[in-house]
Amino acid sequence: MKLLRYGPVGQEKPALLDATGTIRDLSAHVGDITPDVLTPVSLARLSGIDTSTLPAIGGTPRYGAPVSGVGKFIAIGLNFSDHAAESNMPIPSEPIVFMKATTCIQGPNDDVMIPKDSKKTDWEVELGVVIGSTARYVDEANALAHVAGYVVVNDVSEREYQLERGGSWDKGKGCDTFGPIGPWLVTADEVGNPQDLSMWLDVNGQRMQTGNTRTMIFGVAKLVSYCSRFMTLAPGDIITTGTPPGVGMGIKPTPMFLKAGDRMQLGIAKLGEQQQSVIAYRSANN
Amino acid sequence: MKLLRYGPVGQEKPALLDATGTIRDLSAHVGDITPDVLTPVSLARLSGIDTSTLPAIGGTPRYGAPVSGVGKFIAIGLNFSDHAAESNMPIPSEPIVFMKATTCIQGPNDDVMIPKDSKKTDWEVELGVVIGSTARYVDEANALAHVAGYVVVNDVSEREYQLERGGSWDKGKGCDTFGPIGPWLVTADEVGNPQDLSMWLDVNGQRMQTGNTRTMIFGVAKLVSYCSRFMTLAPGDIITTGTPPGVGMGIKPTPMFLKAGDRMQLGIAKLGEQQQSVIAYRSANN
Repeated sequence: MKLLRYGPVGQEKPALLDATGTIRDLSAHVGDITPDVLTPVSLARLSGIDTSTLPAIGGTPRYGAPVSGVGKFIAIGLNFSDHAAESNMPIPSEPIVFMKATTCIQGPNDDVMIPKDSKKTDWEVELGVVIGSTARYVDEANALAHVAGYVVVNDVSEREYQLERGGSWDKGKGCDTFGPIGPWLVTADEVGNPQDLSMWLDVNGQRMQTGNTRTMIFGVAKLVSYCSRFMTLAPGDIITTGTPPGVGMGIKPTPMFLKAGDRMQLGIAKLGEQQQSVIAYRSANN
Repeated sequence: MKLLRYGPVGQEKPALLDATGTIRDLSAHVGDITPDVLTPVSLARLSGIDTSTLPAIGGTPRYGAPVSGVGKFIAIGLNFSDHAAESNMPIPSEPIVFMKATTCIQGPNDDVMIPKDSKKTDWEVELGVVIGSTARYVDEANALAHVAGYVVVNDVSEREYQLERGGSWDKGKGCDTFGPIGPWLVTADEVGNPQDLSMWLDVNGQRMQTGNTRTMIFGVAKLVSYCSRFMTLAPGDIITTGTPPGVGMGIKPTPMFLKAGDRMQLGIAKLGEQQQSVIAYRSANN
């Protein structure tokens, strides 16, 4: 099952993508794709719906992030050994955990805004794991039972804020628009083995990242188990699991960073594709 | 105004503490103390209520955290120069920012649970700043206008997870029960200058931490302004602003950590007091 949210920002409606690729509205069954909709009981109920009875949505609506009300957006660093090498950092002996501010979450194709005065905004295609049931101290063998599904994440990162401003990486990971998620959440049963998914990212039509989740240092089951020892994972929480090589920071001899007008396209096998335009900083009234 | 939430876990009701120290139920006016209740317009409305018309609550109910639905729990590290020294770390040239998992938030007097197999659980009395209106790139001069009020926070920390497991500090800061908040949120108008509040923490009746917010390296206005450059601050977000010296890790020659049966008491002038019993790890059914 592919769950999604469509419509204008803040007014998204719940839907699924049926087997023919048609968006089918789920408003008659759930108010929104909120964390409680991702529990095993709820997903079983939704999967029993005859999708032909659901209203088909025409046109090309905007997609929102496929989950609303994400409580925690947890991220794993340096989880591909060749990405650690390009970042001039050692291969971690246990997972590196940091957090992305939940306010950075947006739709998969929404514009990515370069922060004010930023010079080092970078891209990272990643597999996102969406939690479906509360996980505390779960062992690796049972960890995948707590996963509702998977999503594409662009873990947009500002390298100066992340690495040159002191303290944790969190400063460079949670700027507004730094968390495109989607287009849809693909339930775990439909994905099967999460450790055999190819992934890629282009900037302005040029392939920058090519990878496969099979070369992760720590796989999804390990990451869910590991994180659940340090914090309780709740339905709707997302763990984004690290990026393969090919980020802008790693380009030799001169790193390359995003600038206004650039276009990113990225995707993961079975999970769909995203594309974002990069825009300059602009203030919002607040 | 002192806003609070009272009642059993998950069933807390909104209330205020009146001038005589009586809890007065606010259910007729708001459903809960959620982020939207903390906006300037909402606080102005609540402050106009004749508190004598509100139901008085007798007895000694449990307090919940005074805000429900906190979106981000941001924390500042090493913000007192003498605490940086006892931690054997340099004084930061700009604020150190990390994040506490929102799932660690609990009532001010709820038990603090030592994580499974943990040996280095430690205490930190801190001033928590609760955001009342959206803040993006706010300058220091305007930053305090975005503050709804202040709370006592015990930034409970597991030092091995924080410092010896690789990656960011987030691993050692967000375990369940590591975020006691309250007893109440005191609105900014009632607190006045946030940089002149004495703070203290006892373990088993012995004074461990003594400090005053006037010796912060970076004050509240600076911290709100600074954080708002890296992530949008939303109503209900909490920034906990660092601890004065006297944590267990800093005790010479032998650090001291919490063990089951210990009692913590802590408080900040104008903001009230907390007390927690420390309990051993126990599994929850989930």
